[in-house]
Amino acid sequence: MIGDIQLFAGSASNELAQKISDYVNIPLSGWDIVQFPNENIFVRLHGSARGQDAYIIQTHASPLHTNIMEMLIAIDCLKRDSAERVTVVVPYMSYSQSDKKDQPRVPISARLLADLIEASGADRWMTIDLHSSQIQGFYKIPGDSLTAFHILVDYIKQKALDAVVVTPDLGFAKKGRDYAQALHMPLAFVEKRRVGNENKREALSLIGDVAGKDVIIVDDLVDTAGSMQEAVNLTKRCGAKDIYISFTHPVLSDPATERLAQLPIKEIITTDTLPIPTEKMLPNITILSVARLLGEVILRSHEGRSVGELFNE
Amino acid sequence: MIGDIQLFAGSASNELAQKISDYVNIPLSGWDIVQFPNENIFVRLHGSARGQDAYIIQTHASPLHTNIMEMLIAIDCLKRDSAERVTVVVPYMSYSQSDKKDQPRVPISARLLADLIEASGADRWMTIDLHSSQIQGFYKIPGDSLTAFHILVDYIKQKALDAVVVTPDLGFAKKGRDYAQALHMPLAFVEKRRVGNENKREALSLIGDVAGKDVIIVDDLVDTAGSMQEAVNLTKRCGAKDIYISFTHPVLSDPATERLAQLPIKEIITTDTLPIPTEKMLPNITILSVARLLGEVILRSHEGRSVGELFNE
Amino acid sequence: MIGDIQLFAGSASNELAQKISDYVNIPLSGWDIVQFPNENIFVRLHGSARGQDAYIIQTHASPLHTNIMEMLIAIDCLKRDSAERVTVVVPYMSYSQSDKKDQPRVPISARLLADLIEASGADRWMTIDLHSSQIQGFYKIPGDSLTAFHILVDYIKQKALDAVVVTPDLGFAKKGRDYAQALHMPLAFVEKRRVGNENKREALSLIGDVAGKDVIIVDDLVDTAGSMQEAVNLTKRCGAKDIYISFTHPVLSDPATERLAQLPIKEIITTDTLPIPTEKMLPNITILSVARLLGEVILRSHEGRSVGELFNE
Amino acid sequence: MIGDIQLFAGSASNELAQKISDYVNIPLSGWDIVQFPNENIFVRLHGSARGQDAYIIQTHASPLHTNIMEMLIAIDCLKRDSAERVTVVVPYMSYSQSDKKDQPRVPISARLLADLIEASGADRWMTIDLHSSQIQGFYKIPGDSLTAFHILVDYIKQKALDAVVVTPDLGFAKKGRDYAQALHMPLAFVEKRRVGNENKREALSLIGDVAGKDVIIVDDLVDTAGSMQEAVNLTKRCGAKDIYISFTHPVLSDPATERLAQLPIKEIITTDTLPIPTEKMLPNITILSVARLLGEVILRSHEGRSVGELFNE
Amino acid sequence: MIGDIQLFAGSASNELAQKISDYVNIPLSGWDIVQFPNENIFVRLHGSARGQDAYIIQTHASPLHTNIMEMLIAIDCLKRDSAERVTVVVPYMSYSQSDKKDQPRVPISARLLADLIEASGADRWMTIDLHSSQIQGFYKIPGDSLTAFHILVDYIKQKALDAVVVTPDLGFAKKGRDYAQALHMPLAFVEKRRVGNENKREALSLIGDVAGKDVIIVDDLVDTAGSMQEAVNLTKRCGAKDIYISFTHPVLSDPATERLAQLPIKEIITTDTLPIPTEKMLPNITILSVARLLGEVILRSHEGRSVGELFNE
Amino acid sequence: MIGDIQLFAGSASNELAQKISDYVNIPLSGWDIVQFPNENIFVRLHGSARGQDAYIIQTHASPLHTNIMEMLIAIDCLKRDSAERVTVVVPYMSYSQSDKKDQPRVPISARLLADLIEASGADRWMTIDLHSSQIQGFYKIPGDSLTAFHILVDYIKQKALDAVVVTPDLGFAKKGRDYAQALHMPLAFVEKRRVGNENKREALSLIGDVAGKDVIIVDDLVDTAGSMQEAVNLTKRCGAKDIYISFTHPVLSDPATERLAQLPIKEIITTDTLPIPTEKMLPNITILSVARLLGEVILRSHEGRSVGELFNE
Repeated sequence: MIGDIQLFAGSASNELAQKISDYVNIPLSGWDIVQFPNENIFVRLHGSARGQDAYIIQTHASPLHTNIMEMLIAIDCLKRDSAERVTVVVPYMSYSQSDKKDQPRVPISARLLADLIEASGADRWMTIDLHSSQIQGFYKIPGDSLTAFHILVDYIKQKALDAVVVTPDLGFAKKGRDYAQALHMPLAFVEKRRVGNENKREALSLIGDVAGKDVIIVDDLVDTAGSMQEAVNLTKRCGAKDIYISFTHPVLSDPATERLAQLPIKEIITTDTLPIPTEKMLPNITILSVARLLGEVILRSHEGRSVGELFNE
Repeated sequence: MIGDIQLFAGSASNELAQKISDYVNIPLSGWDIVQFPNENIFVRLHGSARGQDAYIIQTHASPLHTNIMEMLIAIDCLKRDSAERVTVVVPYMSYSQSDKKDQPRVPISARLLADLIEASGADRWMTIDLHSSQIQGFYKIPGDSLTAFHILVDYIKQKALDAVVVTPDLGFAKKGRDYAQALHMPLAFVEKRRVGNENKREALSLIGDVAGKDVIIVDDLVDTAGSMQEAVNLTKRCGAKDIYISFTHPVLSDPATERLAQLPIKEIITTDTLPIPTEKMLPNITILSVARLLGEVILRSHEGRSVGELFNE
Repeated sequence: MIGDIQLFAGSASNELAQKISDYVNIPLSGWDIVQFPNENIFVRLHGSARGQDAYIIQTHASPLHTNIMEMLIAIDCLKRDSAERVTVVVPYMSYSQSDKKDQPRVPISARLLADLIEASGADRWMTIDLHSSQIQGFYKIPGDSLTAFHILVDYIKQKALDAVVVTPDLGFAKKGRDYAQALHMPLAFVEKRRVGNENKREALSLIGDVAGKDVIIVDDLVDTAGSMQEAVNLTKRCGAKDIYISFTHPVLSDPATERLAQLPIKEIITTDTLPIPTEKMLPNITILSVARLLGEVILRSHEGRSVGELFNE
Repeated sequence: MIGDIQLFAGSASNELAQKISDYVNIPLSGWDIVQFPNENIFVRLHGSARGQDAYIIQTHASPLHTNIMEMLIAIDCLKRDSAERVTVVVPYMSYSQSDKKDQPRVPISARLLADLIEASGADRWMTIDLHSSQIQGFYKIPGDSLTAFHILVDYIKQKALDAVVVTPDLGFAKKGRDYAQALHMPLAFVEKRRVGNENKREALSLIGDVAGKDVIIVDDLVDTAGSMQEAVNLTKRCGAKDIYISFTHPVLSDPATERLAQLPIKEIITTDTLPIPTEKMLPNITILSVARLLGEVILRSHEGRSVGELFNE
Repeated sequence: MIGDIQLFAGSASNELAQKISDYVNIPLSGWDIVQFPNENIFVRLHGSARGQDAYIIQTHASPLHTNIMEMLIAIDCLKRDSAERVTVVVPYMSYSQSDKKDQPRVPISARLLADLIEASGADRWMTIDLHSSQIQGFYKIPGDSLTAFHILVDYIKQKALDAVVVTPDLGFAKKGRDYAQALHMPLAFVEKRRVGNENKREALSLIGDVAGKDVIIVDDLVDTAGSMQEAVNLTKRCGAKDIYISFTHPVLSDPATERLAQLPIKEIITTDTLPIPTEKMLPNITILSVARLLGEVILRSHEGRSVGELFNE
Repeated sequence: MIGDIQLFAGSASNELAQKISDYVNIPLSGWDIVQFPNENIFVRLHGSARGQDAYIIQTHASPLHTNIMEMLIAIDCLKRDSAERVTVVVPYMSYSQSDKKDQPRVPISARLLADLIEASGADRWMTIDLHSSQIQGFYKIPGDSLTAFHILVDYIKQKALDAVVVTPDLGFAKKGRDYAQALHMPLAFVEKRRVGNENKREALSLIGDVAGKDVIIVDDLVDTAGSMQEAVNLTKRCGAKDIYISFTHPVLSDPATERLAQLPIKEIITTDTLPIPTEKMLPNITILSVARLLGEVILRSHEGRSVGELFNE
């Protein structure tokens, strides 16, 4: 075991960090995070981290790059203050969609982000529901790639629905199958393809059957809600009854809230990996907390106990 | 431009390397590759590589680990002989399916392989149709992640079939969509899920419709042909007419050949990223060559010309 | 010589990059820089950079962290597109004031920034008037640490003033001496020290003599203009006549413009290492361009010619 | 002290690992090592290694490269499962003879192997009787380079022979001297040199005197037993009486067993750094175990106690 | 906490190391440091360092490069003996003045030195009063950059002088301010500038007022005492009364002792970061010891307690 | 090809560097190497090295550590001046005898030296007759490990002696065989072993026969000439006629010259890898130059031509 646990709340995760602190029953460590008029971020710890086991809890919410830089500077600060081990806990890891070159002359920003975290001196990372699991391999330092799958599935199970699981994108097909299997429901997919010579026009079709059934549209995140909007409308046209949507990360970039508000969705089920500003809260949103999950993994990481068994039935 | 192109044929790619050599019109460079009685591999170049632009062409065929180690030793040999730049050309990159931790306490061997290649001193890599495109990001050194998609699609297009594209696995759903879109065909998927408490039993279902149509089952590779066998049988049961299968990498581990021979497949369309031993050649296999593709990219890499434009129509 | 020069204009340096392009007589290379609704930055080159000598011109203006991340992503993009060499040209390098731990439990963000640039894959860097020259040593990759000293001094010389050089901070004392020496003028300093037990109160004094003379207050940058305001007021109280201020980097964070507008300054002499938004332009600002300097160094870097001799008389 | 000792038995060292486990009185940790039909190796730990002090015991026996790759994958697996420290225990380290470029255009595979082990993430290594001690310096990570010298010498001493120590190769001359000194015996060498213009023909001569004496031919390993065959025959011709051979590593590549069986050797003394398959067991082989040595060093490594004093009389 | 503290006395710091050992109440660990006739340094530990927390105390005294190399070899020795953590304690770090390129075509030797220390395998460093604080950022490994400021100031305070603090160089202006502030004294500077076309001639002037006051000339080190000689003479000419000089590092290269002996200095106040040979001891030197400071920081570093609070009043 | 060749003469190799410069017909590049009173070394290039192919010629003569540090600083200087490639040419590489841990708790200084050279930024290295060839593998960067074997053998061949080759140490036995083979002479060895319980006493014996023959004692270097003295005396006692000694590196630490002067040696054959000070020159020394060898390899390295073929007959 390495020193004592020290929990640091990043600017983007104050509330979640407090919940984790409550769960593990260790108060948050104090620090000043200042942004000067020239936008430079400055971090100063209130107490010494020498020899301790430090956890920086910082999700990649807006303002995105300021929050990323704050995370990197905090790592440097803790390493230079001689923390024995520094773990970055990033409930929602941004740039996860830039995980490959699917066209020439583009970056792989998710790998770059991993390199930046390693270059800053982090010893470990922790995150939830990466857009693609392969991003784990972008890191050479060990980490814990967790999932809110069980949290979401357990909640949906309680509803005892007669529903079909639908994925709004073929990239999520395999994980959609996992949801369908866990919920003992059938599966269907929205397929999107380019039509004609212009790349702009797209044709949508539903592969599978939803008529007369409730529908649970599952994804890892909702960004502008464009795909979700298409999926809701398409399943509705195909005869779906009640529509639920479930996803881990409420990114909710504009105009997501506007779109979701206008759609015939019975319930929006998500988590608190990202804080949802008051103005984006819709009446039909249910937020399940990942605090207990992260807190438990932090405890086990510190004590050298198994994390994997958390995910076994 | 860096020195002159030198092409080295690894033990697993003698034939393909010769075809590439023919295409680029540069003879293969001589070397001895000896395996001693104690299994140690020894490599000795016939001529100096000092200052040159060396390409090691070595696919990951059987015996797998001997071929991987030969590749790594060849890199070391060329670097220590002061080659200016060493590129490993691996038409089929093994361990691509071990690209994430989808359960606790397992390795990410595809990242490990990338680390081994980088640790050996390679400056660049080149490969075709990685099992998941994210593996590109496992490399920090630059590389060329190519595809045989156009080669396969162009061949199939000539048949002018009235067919449905089917993927035998939901993990290939998105790439299946790309095939369907390029071929202007509908799409269907085989879904596989565990049944009951025992993990062993699996239920198969076809999502989408194939009745009365020809079928083209597409995948990145065929290993033991287990999934392919299931997909052929399922689509047949669902009323498919002629069945074609198309995939880039003919891994064909036992009992693939036996299985494929017994199935009602009209044509097996694949490439020469891996050599197919005579005893595994079936009468209905069509092998399309990637030699021209690799040769062209080698030339462009050497001359500092665009590779991306090769893939634009 | 490495391939051809390719110049890329970062979002924060469009105007300066165009001037450099004009000087070296090479058009800017095209690329798309998009910021998605989720704030993720995406970069795509219009043409291939394979084998070329690429220069990314991006100053660290506001929005600071977005511009830093854009720079890092652009490096990754160019390296993965197989540029032979990638140089980041950062006219104003931010975080230069966080160059040491002058109190416990703080980061050294300027070293962190160097690590991020190296981790992204940059081969070289170029910048102007670092806050402390030691930051050069934060980089292991070679670079060109340039200065606008000659540009500023040559301009001031033409005025033929009977003036005293004053530094607003003792940290700039040695460089102030260089200005005084080059301008053949006497030297004075503003000294600031904490008073009493409270850290907040500070006492100012002028060491040296300015009575009846014009004054040139020199510094590397003006941020909120707080120190500059004190220096102007103090020298005025000490009997200075006309007051000029001269600095390389117009950071001009709020409320710099407001402060400068109200001060009895005859002329504000600075450069275009940072763009000055229209609303911050004051009538008494003179902007000298560093485009020619950067362009000349880019040419010499590309051709393997001496840069040092640029700075010899 | 770091977590608890966990011992993992590699496929090539099951028996030796069990003996070590018995000595240190800690059961072997469970894991699955599977080789799929496509030859890919897959490793899965039964329990968590988080925070523990893991030792992978894997010698470099045949199939050589499969066993090497298994070792590297096991390292990756344990590091990604957050083991605190991973030590590879390789009783016989292969490629030790490729430790220099003694001709142009060849690799240094022993250094490459060290790089692969370090790139996989191992924290430490442990091995016995490296072909050349300098290979220690190929590793930057610390390790324990042990010797079976005392085990072999103590056994031979008990025989109280009137013998001459002979080395079959001048490369082992200095270590041969150590044997002779410890056994208080005279020393002689087999010298081999190329004759004439053809490199193939070699002339053998014995430098030193063996007539009328027993002979103990010592080496670090026996591979195909070619040199050993020559040495036995030559010493016999020179009038030796009983002939013993002693070496640490029974590599015994074909046709070693056949050769040894036909030679007039009284006793073959070796160790269990490599398993000897039943079909290679000769009646006159004596196998001394290194299990106690390795077990003791593992204990001392874990507890932070001196290993060096193990080797002092 | 990591193993036990082991203290090793480098050849250049025998006396100081003994004092530190006395303070922390832990005897020095034994080792042999031999320099062979061919000048090669050889280090051998008397006991095992396996798993321990080792501190190498070695200042950069003359013979400089032999002492630096001894330090690097000692690091390698301890790491290869499996010390858990190795900290180099360098009371005076040489090459600190080569911390930037202030002219073209020169090295940055202070960064190089940091690289050498890191490449040798040191885990941490500890030093006192770096010539420029930015050198902290040359290290990626964490370290403790300490200061003898409080030791010197506390001693001077006891004298209750009516004095002016003077810096002999503008590069020390800001730290001079810190002395003046802590001692509640006024401040003055020696300014030096080149005159005419020849670089050799320099003009000196005093900025600030010392007439009729005592003077304390402060600097980080005294090398040949050239600047100090000028400063003493200049302040004397400007009417100073008693002159004290105070500096951390008594480098005292020839002809420093000769110069200092001839100057009208009342007291030379320095520390024992460097040993002063008997022949260089002047009657008016006061040596304050840093042993307690280093000892206390070693204890806190080992026990994971705050070092920063040592420097708060 | 990389820029132009630039040759820099280190302080320890002025004469040899000039000879190399004459051979390749390229003048030495100018630089200042200054050692300040505080022993700090300072390097400044006279002209720009930007984009060039720089060779630093610096042997490891006395004062050893100053010359090593000069070499490292020169590398840093050239890299920071943006030389395209920096090669250190070290005719005699020191610390080569510290190439393994042959007892516990000692360093491997030859590997450390390799790490220092790589950490300084060198791209390549070049040296002659390493004490053990395995040191090549201590370097990850490529290099040229050359030999003066052919120079020495060709010279000896001309004498047409009826001689026996003798090695003074069993560690040189194998290389002794190479000499004997090339010279078509028989071979003998001096064996040295500890006697009794005290480690101090050693017994010498000659294995092989020299009576009535001339003798050529061969080694890689002569340091204090202790072993050489023993070998000369022993072979003389065994009836040798004329005695020649031949070795690459004239280290000649005290009391080598005194010893050699008193011994009955007909001729001392060596090279100029190290300068021999006038006071150490004996009348019977023959010095063969390696300048042509190094010059030729520099040319071939620069032009990308084979070096290996230099060593083929």
